[in-house]
Amino acid sequence: MLDSLIFWIGMAGTVAFAVTAVLAVVPKGINVVAALVLGLITAIGGGTLRDTVLGVPVFWITNQVYAWVAIGASLATFAATNVFTRKEIYILMHYVDGLGAALFAIEATHRVWSRGIGLPLAPIILGVVTGIGGGLIRDVLAGRENLLMDRQIYAIPIMLGCTLYETLLWLFPDHPFEGMIVCVLGTFGLRAAAIFWDLSLPGWLNLKPGDKRVG
Amino acid sequence: MLDSLIFWIGMAGTVAFAVTAVLAVVPKGINVVAALVLGLITAIGGGTLRDTVLGVPVFWITNQVYAWVAIGASLATFAATNVFTRKEIYILMHYVDGLGAALFAIEATHRVWSRGIGLPLAPIILGVVTGIGGGLIRDVLAGRENLLMDRQIYAIPIMLGCTLYETLLWLFPDHPFEGMIVCVLGTFGLRAAAIFWDLSLPGWLNLKPGDKRVG
Amino acid sequence: MLDSLIFWIGMAGTVAFAVTAVLAVVPKGINVVAALVLGLITAIGGGTLRDTVLGVPVFWITNQVYAWVAIGASLATFAATNVFTRKEIYILMHYVDGLGAALFAIEATHRVWSRGIGLPLAPIILGVVTGIGGGLIRDVLAGRENLLMDRQIYAIPIMLGCTLYETLLWLFPDHPFEGMIVCVLGTFGLRAAAIFWDLSLPGWLNLKPGDKRVG
Repeated sequence: MLDSLIFWIGMAGTVAFAVTAVLAVVPKGINVVAALVLGLITAIGGGTLRDTVLGVPVFWITNQVYAWVAIGASLATFAATNVFTRKEIYILMHYVDGLGAALFAIEATHRVWSRGIGLPLAPIILGVVTGIGGGLIRDVLAGRENLLMDRQIYAIPIMLGCTLYETLLWLFPDHPFEGMIVCVLGTFGLRAAAIFWDLSLPGWLNLKPGDKRVG
Repeated sequence: MLDSLIFWIGMAGTVAFAVTAVLAVVPKGINVVAALVLGLITAIGGGTLRDTVLGVPVFWITNQVYAWVAIGASLATFAATNVFTRKEIYILMHYVDGLGAALFAIEATHRVWSRGIGLPLAPIILGVVTGIGGGLIRDVLAGRENLLMDRQIYAIPIMLGCTLYETLLWLFPDHPFEGMIVCVLGTFGLRAAAIFWDLSLPGWLNLKPGDKRVG
Repeated sequence: MLDSLIFWIGMAGTVAFAVTAVLAVVPKGINVVAALVLGLITAIGGGTLRDTVLGVPVFWITNQVYAWVAIGASLATFAATNVFTRKEIYILMHYVDGLGAALFAIEATHRVWSRGIGLPLAPIILGVVTGIGGGLIRDVLAGRENLLMDRQIYAIPIMLGCTLYETLLWLFPDHPFEGMIVCVLGTFGLRAAAIFWDLSLPGWLNLKPGDKRVG
């Protein structure tokens, strides 16, 4: 049942990654090919980087449903931008994107940890890569300022969630799934709060241009 | 004989990829190292991405002639930009680039299909990656708007060609080479038409900024 | 003893890569996560590309000290930008960055050569990738003009050093370490001269926009 839940959240996250990617480029103008390629890369890019660095078969080649769903969602978004840019849907998609990123990242941490590869750093680094890698490639290809340079909190919850999850795996190795649920919800909660209240990092974690600590 | 034809079109395509990459950066000013690196990355980048995702030995390490030809063409273009920016040569190179991209993409589809990896999506996705991946990296490193965001048709013929080719392989598995010839010519024909008439996608496949479907 | 020297220069280079990466983004404003991710990617990105292309286990997963040092240096730089932007430290870091890039590149050439992979081109190409790959990714993610497009000499010494080193390995296969010392020092010397005198390539190797050879 948990497997099935993870699968469905993963599907929802894939849809949200593809939809938000296409919507991100709409203001610049976009053609159907750019929509398709950007949506697909955003949805499967992070996991592809992870699997390539690990040297294991790439997940969307082994299980093609992720790629099909990303393709379908990208085309649907292109065909119906006026639906997806409706305020409620647009905002909903950002929350689902946050849930998907949380799930993909923490699932990746689990995957690397359970193979015992590069403990303790690799599960965290590759978890973060899985969660934000696709979005980074999207921003570079779309010519936008990327999510790392953005003021609003995006990557921090993922980094904290992956770190917490590996700590829980170490403390309670017999309860990987309970830990996963806690960490996915915590990561998503933090991201949801950042969206809802438009949170940025406090000043001492966030140097602005001209900040007196600079120079 | 067909193998030999494929080889020589591949060589011509490698030259064209390197030449067009160097010429693309000439207006911004370029030094010999940037020319060399951009030319080489453009020519071998797409196939490198493909082989890395597949987890197979990278093609230009196995057969170095591609890298040598790309290096030579990049340096020659740098040394003789005034020749290569002559209108006839410049335009010729774009046609050869289109032929090379068509060939590389469809050959990649054949390669992935014949290993039976990730059917039916992977041969198409990796064909497209092989055809446009090097150009995307070039555009990002050169700080140009990338080919996906460009109005003129570039990626669509490659996507259609790879899809058609896999369909033909499925319908006529005993005639891979006839199918390859048809698809390479068709893909190239479409791209050549796009260059000749400066074609872009029709409006319903091409949202412009401010388009009424947006928002 | 030489191994130990290589190790410590490698550590110093890792620190310098991370520090210069963080400092590069300070003028744009930066938060702690961007600092951490950019510092880490810059320090380990080039070697990650190399190992992924080679299909061997990634170096920072096998030996995590590189990643730890990069993380520590990135956070320290963020916490103390006013120290690291002091003129002497800032300049010192650029020299150490040059030494690190030289060492990483030439060590990579040695590694690929000693496995006999793709001689003679692969050891040089992958040496250059190892030396400048992390910096290229940094520049793309930070939205800066990348080091290839920069006027000051950066990549050329690395390219020459890797080429010379492979030549020496071929001429004097029994003296890999003497050759390595000569090439690292030569590469670093050239880069240091470029920093000290702000050297760019001579005009015939450096087309400017509007140069009469253009067009």
